[in-house]
Amino acid sequence: MDIERLVKNSVKDVENYKPGKPISEVKRELGLSDVYKMASNENPLGSSPKALKALKRELKCLNRYPDSGCFYLKDKLSKILEVRPENLTIGNGSDELIALTLRAFLNHSEEVIVAKPTFLMYELYSRIEGARVKVVPMKNFKYDLDAIRQAVTEKTKIIFIANPDNPCGTYVNRVEVERFLSCLPDNVIVFHDEAYYEFMDVEDYPQLISSINRRPLIISRTFSKVYGLAGLRIGYGIASPKITEYLNKARDPFNVNSLAQAAALAALDDGGFVKKSLELNKRGREYLFAELQRLGLEFVKSWTNCIVVKIGRNAADLVNYFLKNGIIIRNMSAWGLGEYIRVTVGLEKENRKFIRLLGNYLLNSEQ
Amino acid sequence: MDIERLVKNSVKDVENYKPGKPISEVKRELGLSDVYKMASNENPLGSSPKALKALKRELKCLNRYPDSGCFYLKDKLSKILEVRPENLTIGNGSDELIALTLRAFLNHSEEVIVAKPTFLMYELYSRIEGARVKVVPMKNFKYDLDAIRQAVTEKTKIIFIANPDNPCGTYVNRVEVERFLSCLPDNVIVFHDEAYYEFMDVEDYPQLISSINRRPLIISRTFSKVYGLAGLRIGYGIASPKITEYLNKARDPFNVNSLAQAAALAALDDGGFVKKSLELNKRGREYLFAELQRLGLEFVKSWTNCIVVKIGRNAADLVNYFLKNGIIIRNMSAWGLGEYIRVTVGLEKENRKFIRLLGNYLLNSEQ
Repeated sequence: MDIERLVKNSVKDVENYKPGKPISEVKRELGLSDVYKMASNENPLGSSPKALKALKRELKCLNRYPDSGCFYLKDKLSKILEVRPENLTIGNGSDELIALTLRAFLNHSEEVIVAKPTFLMYELYSRIEGARVKVVPMKNFKYDLDAIRQAVTEKTKIIFIANPDNPCGTYVNRVEVERFLSCLPDNVIVFHDEAYYEFMDVEDYPQLISSINRRPLIISRTFSKVYGLAGLRIGYGIASPKITEYLNKARDPFNVNSLAQAAALAALDDGGFVKKSLELNKRGREYLFAELQRLGLEFVKSWTNCIVVKIGRNAADLVNYFLKNGIIIRNMSAWGLGEYIRVTVGLEKENRKFIRLLGNYLLNSEQ
Repeated sequence: MDIERLVKNSVKDVENYKPGKPISEVKRELGLSDVYKMASNENPLGSSPKALKALKRELKCLNRYPDSGCFYLKDKLSKILEVRPENLTIGNGSDELIALTLRAFLNHSEEVIVAKPTFLMYELYSRIEGARVKVVPMKNFKYDLDAIRQAVTEKTKIIFIANPDNPCGTYVNRVEVERFLSCLPDNVIVFHDEAYYEFMDVEDYPQLISSINRRPLIISRTFSKVYGLAGLRIGYGIASPKITEYLNKARDPFNVNSLAQAAALAALDDGGFVKKSLELNKRGREYLFAELQRLGLEFVKSWTNCIVVKIGRNAADLVNYFLKNGIIIRNMSAWGLGEYIRVTVGLEKENRKFIRLLGNYLLNSEQ
């Protein structure tokens, strides 16, 4: 039975995405009872309490299919964002918006432009869909929009911009993005991934919603980060009604589960939890910046909830050392940064343990 | 901004799937307080109580991404099914298995064979992926495997078989399916959709798991039906390790939410709920058969939890009459059966109200 003859070429050689290990897996495999996960940019405070409460009320209806139209969530989001429900696509995580964009718009062998290092799913999904992927290196860990613009050809169909970026935590500002958009041909779709949007308390962060009817543009956001609902899988896209119509044609009618819809709806009312989460993150990030500096390590100044740190050739070894000591952090080799790690800002005790272990490791490796 | 120039041709003209209306929508739009949904083949008893209990324990971890590998669920399923975890793909509903199969294996303009009337998603997803779709009519509301085999050409890549079928509720037996498989070229993938598998208490239902390593074959099952977890979105595929590897390459690494994983795991232990659900369904089905006969209506003898009933040219009007009176049933026009409706077997009181309304309607329309 020769299955390799049957599989699509674009899928055959795709490398599997390697997510941060789940806490249960590390406990099971290493026999540890207490494990901190600082690997996947999750909210260390937990989930929005209002979301959890709302979700419980839905448990009695789980025998029913979810609302395919996500009526109540779209209604509420449209009021908050000052758009129409016809501008919104709800996804099984904002990851799904990436997949839907490719599925609706990318013809085989058209070109996609991605940065490096950036969110790995852009390239992964693009390859699955048979895209030619052009990779444009970042400049000092920041999106190089000039180089991306210069890389555009007649074949270019979609450009993915993570803003702020994951893993780097850097951003490109309003003036930079608007200049970039104004120079692009109008047959190129820009996917502006704002998964970490809520972390951006700066005045010059781009506000692109007003541009969705002016050019092909899809803005994506998620409930996985600051709202603490990564386990439920829910995110959304904002785009013109016509783009939205096609994204919705490409999706499974029941892509978003009922509990995710109920939880996201309630989370939008939980300003208190968002505020607390952002404050905790900011304090933790400042603490980690100061301690990394004290330890003499280079790192990227992040605006989000993760920090890329240069370790040197021992980076993979360090990740293992952390794992054995009950902290999951991220090896950056999948991003082509073998000498770096990425750590998610945690609770105070998690950040302190991270720094303590890091100090110990550096001390021992110097000897 | 000319988006129609940018969208893929295969997506542009796809018709949206029209699901059964959610109860909340009917209440909202018609101002009704009490609505019975007998439109989407859901479990009228609710969800497995063990599943609901297990799911609650996971609520404290929703800030974490789901386990991408679905370790515990695959482990348990593999023991029950006597396969290996490497044979299993977990999907965001078994619908996703259909999409993954096409995404991993179907090259643009290869051919897919589907029956008619059958589950609409096969054709819908196939069109999105750019397949040529060959439609083979059923024979007396039953899959015509001989005709399907004769429709196979060199271009044929995937054949979808719903067994038992939805909407018809009929099945093709072991001898028929095995003869069919033995005559197929081994470069054709058979997708054997067993969403209603648990309802089949007949001895000659095909047992195909032993064939997964003999030919390209994907068996799909779901937790949406007898386990009552449609709202959570979880199903699975059983196939050879190589096919499974490629299905997994084509999926989003976080496609299955954490609560669905926990609930499905526990539901597999809830034999009591399954038994009760199947008994309720059988009683309800017998009652409906007898009453439909009494009313002089033609219907398809179903083995599952839904019944296709011939109404005549008033079928659409009947569906509206039911809606206004608080029962959601399914118009069959999307299946090309404008004179038929599909009703899901409900609770006793739901079945009785359905028959009462149907009797009233027929009486009034005779006058």
